[in-house]
Amino acid sequence: MPEEIMEKYRIIELKEGIFDRNNLEAERLREKLNAEGTFLLNLMSSPGAGKTTLLKKTIAALKDDLRIAVMEADIDSDVDASAIAETGVDVIQLHTGGMCHLDADMTRQGIDALSAKDADLIVLENVGNLVCPAEFDTGATKSAMILSVPEGDDKPLKYPLMFEISNALIIGKIDALPYFDFDIELCKARAKKLNPKIEIFCVSARTGEGMAVWTDWLKDEVLKIK
Amino acid sequence: MPEEIMEKYRIIELKEGIFDRNNLEAERLREKLNAEGTFLLNLMSSPGAGKTTLLKKTIAALKDDLRIAVMEADIDSDVDASAIAETGVDVIQLHTGGMCHLDADMTRQGIDALSAKDADLIVLENVGNLVCPAEFDTGATKSAMILSVPEGDDKPLKYPLMFEISNALIIGKIDALPYFDFDIELCKARAKKLNPKIEIFCVSARTGEGMAVWTDWLKDEVLKIK
Repeated sequence: MPEEIMEKYRIIELKEGIFDRNNLEAERLREKLNAEGTFLLNLMSSPGAGKTTLLKKTIAALKDDLRIAVMEADIDSDVDASAIAETGVDVIQLHTGGMCHLDADMTRQGIDALSAKDADLIVLENVGNLVCPAEFDTGATKSAMILSVPEGDDKPLKYPLMFEISNALIIGKIDALPYFDFDIELCKARAKKLNPKIEIFCVSARTGEGMAVWTDWLKDEVLKIK
Repeated sequence: MPEEIMEKYRIIELKEGIFDRNNLEAERLREKLNAEGTFLLNLMSSPGAGKTTLLKKTIAALKDDLRIAVMEADIDSDVDASAIAETGVDVIQLHTGGMCHLDADMTRQGIDALSAKDADLIVLENVGNLVCPAEFDTGATKSAMILSVPEGDDKPLKYPLMFEISNALIIGKIDALPYFDFDIELCKARAKKLNPKIEIFCVSARTGEGMAVWTDWLKDEVLKIK
């Protein structure tokens, strides 16, 4: 960027709000689930990035090998739970009452409400949001985020915390690559710079491309805590 | 949806957090701006929906007729302010320090920091998020939201408050309609059901389709308070 443009705007630091990081409760929940052999996956993304569609396809691939339950978090609708219910797994809808994230206590309330008490894998589909869910540890064993191609490859620059705290990055809707300016290698490099250990998967839930690599990885992770 | 599926999940209402709606401060800011003849537009959307690109094209269309200034809100990057600086208008980057929205006091801090004291139109590009920005009145004259085609036509069902509080809905990236399952009429009906007065514009900032209808409306709104 030319220096004369750099000088054309200033950056104002606004006062920071207070976050209750609820780390202790999250750590306690993680240990309890681990002792029970239950893997909790926290799945996050922007609204419309394709969490529910990816999840339906993931369930279809793994439901014969793993006992799966799903918690769908949303402000106040239940369209996602009804979509997941069609797969036949145990699912509940969590309403956050306007809040933009789940914390560890809300997650625990959800797990307590599940019918299946012996799940190998519980998936928490978090509220669609790249900001708040990154701030609150849910107590999940691992966190995964989806960045879909239409959102753009600059998102690691704009929502760095989400990329820093995620164990896995799923670059989704790759069947749309021909129609958008999205540089996969640049996006990967930006994510790796923030989080060198992040696992990256390129998938299209629509065409199935790359899905097996993702579901194999997830299955291995679930079996690791058995 | 078949009834047997409806019965397969329950809905759990989680405790609601406390929101400071800062309505008084917002009302005060709105009155002050109105008295000065300055129109403040609060522009909201998901991450990656195309706020900055739409804004660049909007500025290009209106900069000969209106004095325009821009406040770019972001967690901690400045990629958007640098993009807007290229248009030549007065722009500042507001850093929210991790917060997922701007409130009226933050907005006032931003306006005070602008160099241009006689702008006809100030655009606040809010943090990319469909939840939190809807909760906090910024003091804007009007609020507009972008829903881009790749996000899906079900978003009014999942983020109803955002559609309820927006004066204008811009359905963006319509050049991508052939590649996604997005029903424009269904989306419009869902938005109108939540907010019968909402103005709806279908645009592609990339091809320019529909842009003039949007910018003509915005210019008319700005001139109304003169």
